[in-house]
Amino acid sequence: MEDRWSRSELDLHLDIDAARGLRAGLEQALRDAVRRGRLAPGTSLPSSRVLARDLGVARGTVTQAYDQLVAEGYLIAAPRSGIKVAVRPSAPPAEPATLARSYRPPVQGVDLRPGQPDLAMFPRREWLAATRHVMQTAPNSVFGYGDQTGRIELREALAGYVGRACGVVAAPDQIIVCAGYTHAFRLVCQALLLRGATAVAVEDPSLPDYAAIARHTGLQVDAIPVDGAGLIVDRLGSQGGVAVTPAHQFPLGVTMSPARRADLLKWAHQAKALVIEDDYDGEFRYDRQPVGALQGLAPEQVVYVGTASKTIAPGLRMAWLVAPPALMRPLAEVTKMDETYVSVVDQLVFARLIETGELDRHLRRCRAHYRRRRDRLDAAVARDLPSAHLSGIAAGLQAVLHLAGGAEPDLLAHLDRHGVAVDGLAQYYHNPDGIPPGLVIGYSTPPEHAYATALSTLIPALRSWLDQP
Amino acid sequence: MEDRWSRSELDLHLDIDAARGLRAGLEQALRDAVRRGRLAPGTSLPSSRVLARDLGVARGTVTQAYDQLVAEGYLIAAPRSGIKVAVRPSAPPAEPATLARSYRPPVQGVDLRPGQPDLAMFPRREWLAATRHVMQTAPNSVFGYGDQTGRIELREALAGYVGRACGVVAAPDQIIVCAGYTHAFRLVCQALLLRGATAVAVEDPSLPDYAAIARHTGLQVDAIPVDGAGLIVDRLGSQGGVAVTPAHQFPLGVTMSPARRADLLKWAHQAKALVIEDDYDGEFRYDRQPVGALQGLAPEQVVYVGTASKTIAPGLRMAWLVAPPALMRPLAEVTKMDETYVSVVDQLVFARLIETGELDRHLRRCRAHYRRRRDRLDAAVARDLPSAHLSGIAAGLQAVLHLAGGAEPDLLAHLDRHGVAVDGLAQYYHNPDGIPPGLVIGYSTPPEHAYATALSTLIPALRSWLDQP
Repeated sequence: MEDRWSRSELDLHLDIDAARGLRAGLEQALRDAVRRGRLAPGTSLPSSRVLARDLGVARGTVTQAYDQLVAEGYLIAAPRSGIKVAVRPSAPPAEPATLARSYRPPVQGVDLRPGQPDLAMFPRREWLAATRHVMQTAPNSVFGYGDQTGRIELREALAGYVGRACGVVAAPDQIIVCAGYTHAFRLVCQALLLRGATAVAVEDPSLPDYAAIARHTGLQVDAIPVDGAGLIVDRLGSQGGVAVTPAHQFPLGVTMSPARRADLLKWAHQAKALVIEDDYDGEFRYDRQPVGALQGLAPEQVVYVGTASKTIAPGLRMAWLVAPPALMRPLAEVTKMDETYVSVVDQLVFARLIETGELDRHLRRCRAHYRRRRDRLDAAVARDLPSAHLSGIAAGLQAVLHLAGGAEPDLLAHLDRHGVAVDGLAQYYHNPDGIPPGLVIGYSTPPEHAYATALSTLIPALRSWLDQP
Repeated sequence: MEDRWSRSELDLHLDIDAARGLRAGLEQALRDAVRRGRLAPGTSLPSSRVLARDLGVARGTVTQAYDQLVAEGYLIAAPRSGIKVAVRPSAPPAEPATLARSYRPPVQGVDLRPGQPDLAMFPRREWLAATRHVMQTAPNSVFGYGDQTGRIELREALAGYVGRACGVVAAPDQIIVCAGYTHAFRLVCQALLLRGATAVAVEDPSLPDYAAIARHTGLQVDAIPVDGAGLIVDRLGSQGGVAVTPAHQFPLGVTMSPARRADLLKWAHQAKALVIEDDYDGEFRYDRQPVGALQGLAPEQVVYVGTASKTIAPGLRMAWLVAPPALMRPLAEVTKMDETYVSVVDQLVFARLIETGELDRHLRRCRAHYRRRRDRLDAAVARDLPSAHLSGIAAGLQAVLHLAGGAEPDLLAHLDRHGVAVDGLAQYYHNPDGIPPGLVIGYSTPPEHAYATALSTLIPALRSWLDQP
């Protein structure tokens, strides 16, 4: 036994981290030695007396370390045979496969993909000031398990905000604070299922995530085409709901016409269906004030969803859903089993930003900022790409560039070679056959210092593609 | 028409909010009048010329307001017949049913229900200081759509923390940041399903939420009894996983014995199952240093889940899952469709608290704080309730008071009459038949100033119950 031990002692000795204290250091060294296989299962360890003498520490230190590792299962204290290394049930793990997965992996070069605001606009100073206020004034109870519908302070602030900014009619207890639009949409799909719906309609084109979420909850998804006036309502059937982006269709950018709005609400009324209004960028309207939400026109038939992803930052994962009476009961059922909350600190900070008017001031700054960017893109296209046409520019953070001909995959590959990442239009179509090539240009995406470069890379790259024989 | 209008004009005039500006005020007044039914569908509105004259505003102001409301669908511009109020598809909503639902509704009187730390311990000053650091130093990119597994800064900090504090072996890319234990457990259940599991085992007694979540994802739930050494491992069968609380069983408070730990890992190895280790209060061990996590012993067979709900606050909704290699692929599948994120600000702030050592300092303060509370409860029980027995006191934030006889529902009703809210033990059992009466006392729950009162209410109330003939 002395022989075997002398080997192990060397390992132990080398690994003892004196900064942890002798006992903790000894424990860690033993643990590591077992884990890494230097002390094989079944190996007898020296008695505490012997090890204490060898290490020059008190016997109690060794006894305590042994006890701890026996309690943890690394060692076994067998009657009469002393302390042994426990048999571990399987081999140590192989190199773990990576789980890391980015929702939006960064690109080299110019990033003009849509869906993200200029992250440099995040109101850091205001956020910090609001956090100070929250930390100084919030009652302790806010840090406890919260109400799954969100903090009342935020729901009250939001009820005022959505009424003022978007024409939404909402009482605080109709509002559910959600972790982004996708969470809100998933809750609504689940609630529609509970109401007996079997299918939901989405716009074609639209963000593929929505169809994926709806299918994932068990709903059939019907893609309904969009024209220059928005969703072609008379293509709807007996779906239990339809998800629309009436203020600024994503990705096309059209605003749903008054006639279509009326038709859509009429359909919902007749089909006993609900309209899910995704107001993802309703705060950014450049040519006149925001178009009032559909919800304000028929609060009993529309689920309104707004988000802070474009106005503040996607990383907050904050959105809000305004539920019509018919959806209250099924939504209550669904949220009961839902474990998704939004950080209570973020909720209170955001409520404070609304109450102090900081959010409104921030939105005014952002609106001017993005409008300038839009104007620069618009001017560059008009000047340098006369055969192309830009649409959807009245609002939002992205525009669609329509090109007369050619194949979109070739165009995207060409742009990629020129260092430009931008979305093709086809990927948003459920059936992209016959769709002329188009680009969805997220002009809010680059940081400010890089925007000029982004345009002066994109435009010549497009020219050279258009000039090809 | 002049007649009808003169009525409406009065309403409009009364409602115009001059602070908004004339046009916006006029729009709002018109919108409200339509919404509230003061302007009935089909009503003709005066021409812009007439209304402008009546109101004493420029004609363009009225034209723009009409255009806006036509765009929003409140009004219809019909050729030749001028502007009319649109027909709204249905009646205005009835009083909405309330959605509000509290996870943990507050009680009057003394609250000794388990599951919540002393919320007054929330490290407000440190949280604010860390927020300042984050707002001053974080790159803009953190505010974008994040990695669904959590910020790398936090995963790196956590990898060090769980190793140091809990003996967990974790690389940052094995960690997923979750919105509380329930989120982590739901992800794991879904991943087990993908691996082909049909059943999962839970401890009996345990928190009923876990069984509910597992059933909700589609798994069968088998309740396995717990004795003084933890889960009775030889009652396990062919389940695909088992959820355990080895450090401090919830609610009984026993620590899983070394032999049971070994047996459990052996079972998992043989059944090709995974152990889900819920380390909900592992940081709070009073009688010696924390018992190392089961995960450290067999990282390839254990899913470890830790949480900030007890160490900082439940309202953060922050937990972390350390995945074994076998679960990486199914978890990646599951998180792909998962929209639950944790606030990026909270993630960075929490990472900063770990890095600066503030979390460790906070935990030392909390440990001393809760230990004093436990000691006071323990002393009061020993002094005044000699026939009762307190268990599970070596760790955590709750203890179980076992009483010799009587019916638990009667006891709870008696305590309720004395103004004490506390959990009975039976509610945590899948089959509570034959379980002697017991109370799960959350001694961390009351605020500090109320703890003395809590004990001086609880103990006499229990005495009077025990003294009953």
